[in-house]
This record gives sequence, structure tokens and C-alpha cells, in this order.
Amino acid sequence: MTIAHSNNDDLQALEESYKALTELGLDLDLTRGKPAPEQLALSDSLDGILQGNYRSDSGVDVRNYGELMGLFELRELFGELFDLHPNEVLVGGNSSLSLMYLALEYALQHSNNDGGVRRFLCPAPGYDRHFSVCERLDLEMISVPLNDNGPDMDVVESLLAEDGTICGIWCVPRFSNPTGCVYSDDTVARIARLPQHASGPFTVMWDNAYAVHALTPEAPALASISKAAREAGTLASVLQFGSTSKVTFAGAGVAFLGADADWLSGFAKHLSFRTIGPDKVNQLRHLRFLPDAQAIEAHMARQAALIKPKFEAVLQVLEKELAGQEFGQWTTPQGGYFISFDTLPGLAKDVVALAAAVGVKLTPAGATYPYGQDPTDSNIRLAPTYPCLEDVERCAQVFALCVKLATLRAAQN
Amino acid sequence: MTIAHSNNDDLQALEESYKALTELGLDLDLTRGKPAPEQLALSDSLDGILQGNYRSDSGVDVRNYGELMGLFELRELFGELFDLHPNEVLVGGNSSLSLMYLALEYALQHSNNDGGVRRFLCPAPGYDRHFSVCERLDLEMISVPLNDNGPDMDVVESLLAEDGTICGIWCVPRFSNPTGCVYSDDTVARIARLPQHASGPFTVMWDNAYAVHALTPEAPALASISKAAREAGTLASVLQFGSTSKVTFAGAGVAFLGADADWLSGFAKHLSFRTIGPDKVNQLRHLRFLPDAQAIEAHMARQAALIKPKFEAVLQVLEKELAGQEFGQWTTPQGGYFISFDTLPGLAKDVVALAAAVGVKLTPAGATYPYGQDPTDSNIRLAPTYPCLEDVERCAQVFALCVKLATLRAAQN
Repeated sequence: MTIAHSNNDDLQALEESYKALTELGLDLDLTRGKPAPEQLALSDSLDGILQGNYRSDSGVDVRNYGELMGLFELRELFGELFDLHPNEVLVGGNSSLSLMYLALEYALQHSNNDGGVRRFLCPAPGYDRHFSVCERLDLEMISVPLNDNGPDMDVVESLLAEDGTICGIWCVPRFSNPTGCVYSDDTVARIARLPQHASGPFTVMWDNAYAVHALTPEAPALASISKAAREAGTLASVLQFGSTSKVTFAGAGVAFLGADADWLSGFAKHLSFRTIGPDKVNQLRHLRFLPDAQAIEAHMARQAALIKPKFEAVLQVLEKELAGQEFGQWTTPQGGYFISFDTLPGLAKDVVALAAAVGVKLTPAGATYPYGQDPTDSNIRLAPTYPCLEDVERCAQVFALCVKLATLRAAQN
Repeated sequence: MTIAHSNNDDLQALEESYKALTELGLDLDLTRGKPAPEQLALSDSLDGILQGNYRSDSGVDVRNYGELMGLFELRELFGELFDLHPNEVLVGGNSSLSLMYLALEYALQHSNNDGGVRRFLCPAPGYDRHFSVCERLDLEMISVPLNDNGPDMDVVESLLAEDGTICGIWCVPRFSNPTGCVYSDDTVARIARLPQHASGPFTVMWDNAYAVHALTPEAPALASISKAAREAGTLASVLQFGSTSKVTFAGAGVAFLGADADWLSGFAKHLSFRTIGPDKVNQLRHLRFLPDAQAIEAHMARQAALIKPKFEAVLQVLEKELAGQEFGQWTTPQGGYFISFDTLPGLAKDVVALAAAVGVKLTPAGATYPYGQDPTDSNIRLAPTYPCLEDVERCAQVFALCVKLATLRAAQN
């Protein structure tokens, strides 16, 4: 199967190419940031890695109840990676989303809640599940522009100065979902100081989901928010999250929460009403599989080797078909799971619909904005990791054709 | 080391025996219902059982995201055990407590909450973590007597008829924590009808934690609440819970929630705001390890072979030292994890303190009652599974001596 693509941008030729696509019966999916089977297979030795030894080095029988804060050795390892003391790290189950939800819910109990509105800053485009947490927790979302070096901090700081109901901000600081941007050192430092400027309790939700997910060794590093927050005296207001969902198994990794030790011990008490402790057997498996920072780095290089060709395939098609910006613009991430594409204003929904009609599912237009409302209807998130390389290329070609078609149709009206 | 025990019940002799105990430097713990290492070892083959095959029979790659309701085959298996359709079963992570908390929190969103008081029925003695869930969810607890065949249903029904603020009841229907009683068929049927009698939404929290945890094949079976509730038309008000915490690994098992299919699909939506899905890799391990009811039964017989001698050791000491009821009475459970002991009124705290002072930790007196308040200060929960047999015997001897000492001291005052 090959997908015809027009070499000129003539509308009629595009319509014909598109019509031809409808007959191919494609069934492709570029919607979610899921690891591909061959990425997951890199961690297949997890099952069986304990070889009958269920005791941690610190002497804990991981099969039994207990250790609400997680296995000490793993708290130590995550602490080392993120400049935190083991007492500042809690290791949980397979879901960082679950930790984020609970931690934010808990943090909000200490923020003003006289029944009045509470607002949360959402750099956008961003991650839809962060937004749905806000909706569920009755937090009114305020979009903040996300630039190449992170949220527009001038906007953030002036909003915070003006509006006393703002009680926090979402951040995906390295290889942001979906743009792939890495927050600059200055941005990290300014975010760490935000709680000082807020009129009430303010929580930085630092979802470092792609902390070690570089596609190249040259990818920019992320400044330590732990260090910056310690200097600013705001560590109790900065909640750091991460997981191995995109390191080992997407459904069966381990998640962590980094925070001020006192805050964390209060949170653990809160947690104790609903669980006796996390799955420490899986935590010990992870510790055996990835015992130190070096092992994680080597493992992530193997992940990058599988992912990078897919990113390159998409970028090559976009470059070839859409270069020059008259059809929009896109990001060239050096890590993470997504490419972010901006059509000309008003066309994202059309492009997604056109692609869907020929069997290529894309993340719904608007999903990357609070309330599913992209004010300019232009952002589309492309997630190239899951399909095989050939399918990724096909998706990109279909996508490029749909972008061109939507653009030329719009130009004609 | 041997523990001297008096052959007469002379107070001075008891005081001397007790004093001798203080010099032994005991450090024993009979507090929590934890499986012993040799019980956990029965499931050691769980790690490695997949042998590199991470695909379920229904074709799911368990390593990846998804399947919020859990692995279909495991929902099928739990459904078979508890007379539920797979659509009526959700399989989660390692913690049934966590499912109970979330499910009750969700159920309460649909019950009257005009800011007024809400009450919950708590058969007592009962499980302290059920009570703490109530406290956390602002549910005022009403103790209900727990008889040999379950909660006193006359009391339950008349409370419900009188008090419109009552919105649910906790139940541990088989081998109740801590008495070990099994609810009678009639009790099960009456509980299934309770939601019909309530003036508003009413939730039966059916924590079937010890569903398959018989110590002997002759242990009484439990009537099916699924069938009873289906007949009564109340399935949407009956939430069934269980886990493999005391089947495989206490910290790394799988928990389930059984409920009406529509209710469950609403709950799954609720859950989707905080998690993408449970750890299906561990679910598949459990399915491979315990593929059917027969395998579970055989496995639980192996558990019983390890636990039963410890129960017998405690019961023999109690029988030998305390028979005749002048020192109190106790239960003789045919399954579960606990023996429930009632001292003469007003002595439970004294006994626990006496035991603690010589190095034998017991569950705090009062813990088995709402708000930690045992109205007669008589109930003590004994948990014999975790220590080795020799230590269990020692604990029982110390316990018996403390009971006698407390009783005779009290008699003298």
C-alpha cells in the first residue's frame, strides 16, 4: 500500500489524492502517548528478576504489608535523581496521575476555600488529564501561553499579582506535553519563587513525566527545582511527580512524589486512611532492574533508539510537505512523546476530522487546552511512538495532506 | 526460654509470675493480621510466572496503558466466585481499602448531603480501618451488636426505620474481623433487603476480605449476597470487596470491587479522573498462578495448614488457663485471621497494658469499636498468624497470665 501525495498544492489535485485515501481503508491511531511493544519489551526481564529473593537490602520483606512511603532504597534513588532527601520522596503504585490527584486534593484542603472560586494556572497547550483533574477538583483554569522556554513567566507573575484566587500551576518542565519544550533555568527559578508572590497557599504541580526521556544526548538538561525551591524557601509548595510508565511498563511501573519532608509526612497520614501501602514487590523489581542513575541512562538510550526514527519520520514528512509556514508550524522536540502542530487559525478541527474520515485517528483538536477549547483552533498533538515506523510515516503523510487540503479549502472560501 | 505460669489463681503467685516475665525481655507482636513469611512463600512463584508472555488470552498487552476495569479474565474469575457478571466486577491494584474508600466516597455523592449529619452502621467489634474511613468521610458511626450469626438484624432494621440519616452499613460477612463469625443465610438475605427499607440511598459495604480463608473444610459457607440482592432488586446498593492480600502477597495482591454494572460504569468514569488503569501485569500473574476456583481452594488449604496450628495453640492456652468464663470468653473461629477475646467488663485496657509492659504488643483495646471506644472496655483482638508457632504460644501464655492478673487485681479492689 502506498499513499499518493500530490507534489503540487493545487486544491483539485489534493481533493483527488484525499479521495483516493478514503479507498485505502486505513485504520491508524496517532492519539495517545503509548510506548510501542518493542519499547515495553526492553523491560521484559522485570518479571522474574527477583529470583525468589523478596527481601530488600534494608531487610524489608516486600511481600508483606507496610512501608506507606515506599521502599527506602527506591526513595533514595529517586531522591538522588531529583536532589531530594529520601524523607522528601514517596514511592507509590503504578500511577503518577493518581498521586497527583490525591496530592492536589490534599494541598487544596489547606488553601482558601470559603466556597469562593479557586483558580489554577494551566500553561497551554498542555496535558488533557491535568485539565480534567482541575475540573474534578472545581478549579477554574486560566490558560497561560507556553513558549519555547516554558510558560510565559511575565504573564504568570502578573496574573498572580492581580488575582488572589489563583492557588497553583501545572508544569511539565522537560519535554512538555505536547510541545516538547524544556523550561529554561530562569523559568525554573521564577517558578520556584511563585509561592512567595501568592497571597495564599500556592502549589506548583511539577509533573516531570519525561525527566529522563531525551531523544539525543544533546537534549537540554532541566535545572533542579528542588535546589531552586530550597533557595527560595518554597519546597513545601512544590510537588514533584514522575513515574517509570514510559521507562519500563506503561501500566505497571512505579510512580513517585517529591515534596518537603513535613508536607510529605502529613500527606502520608492522609494516605493512610485509604491504603496500607504500595506494591513494594514491583518497587523492588524496579530497583533490581534499574539500580542507579547510570542504568536508567543506558536504558533510556535504548528507548530513544526505538523512538527517534519515528519522530524523524514525522518531521521529515512535515518538512517535505509543509515547509515554509503557509500551512502552519510545528515543534522539533529533543525528547518526550509528542510533536505539537499548529495549523493556521481555525483549521485544527477540520484537519482532525479529515484525517478521521480516512481512518487516521488524531488527538481531538482542543484537547491540549483547558476545557477542550483551543481559542485559535489550531493546535494538534501528534503522538508517534506507538504505531510501527511504516504506519507512523503513513499517518504523517495523511496528516500533511489533510493539513494542506483544509488550508486550501479555507483559502478558497 | 520458658514462661512460668501459675497453676493456681492466687493473686500473689500471679504477681510473681508476671514479675518474672518482665525479666525475660520479650519482644513479641500479636497486633496485626499479617501473613507469616512461610505463608507468603507459598506464592513466591508469582514473580517470573509470565515467562516473558505478557499477553492475556483476550489479547491485551498487559504492559501497556488501559483497561480501567481490569483484566477481563480476572473479572470473569472473580465474577464466577461471587455470582457476578464480568461487567459487575472491577479489578484494581493491591489495595481493597483504597477501592472501599473511593467507592464509598463516590456512593456518598449520591446520598443526601444537605450538610446535615450522615450516619453509618458499624457492627462491632469490627475492623478499625473501616471506622477510620467513616471518620475521614464525616460519617457518624452507630455501633450495632455483632452476634454469632452476624449483626443483630433486629437492631439494624429498627435503627433504619427510626433514623433517616443512616446511609449504609459495614459488613465483614465471612470470618468477621475480629470475631470470626460467619453471617447466616437469613442475615445475608435481610442485609440485601436493607436498601429497600432506607428512606434515602443506602450502601452495603460488603468487605468479603476472608471469603476463601477457611481453616477447615467444614467451615460454614456464606450465602451469596449477589443472588440475594438481585432478588431484592438492591444490587446497585451492595458493594462487594475482596483482595488476594491474604491469598498471595499482603502488599502486592489484587483487589476487586463487585457491584451493579451501571453503578460500576459510573464509578469507572469517576476513577478515570485519577488513574489510567490498574497494574495489569500483576493481574495477569495472579491469573496464571490461580487460574480457577479449584486452584484457589487448593492454595488456601496450604495456607490453612500453616495458620491452623497457630490458632490451635492460642485456643489451647486459653482453654487450659482461662476456661470457665470467670476470666472472660473468646471465639473459636473456623477461618479468618483473628480470635476475639472479651475480658470481664472494664479490663481490656489493663490487660493490653500489662502485656505491653512485658514486651507483648496487642491490638490497642478499643480499636475494634467505632471511635476507639469499647463501651464495656472488654474486647481484645488476637492476631496469631504472623509470629512463629513458638512465639504465638508464648504470647498466648503471657496474654492468659495478664488476663488472670487483671481479673484478680480487679476482684480485690
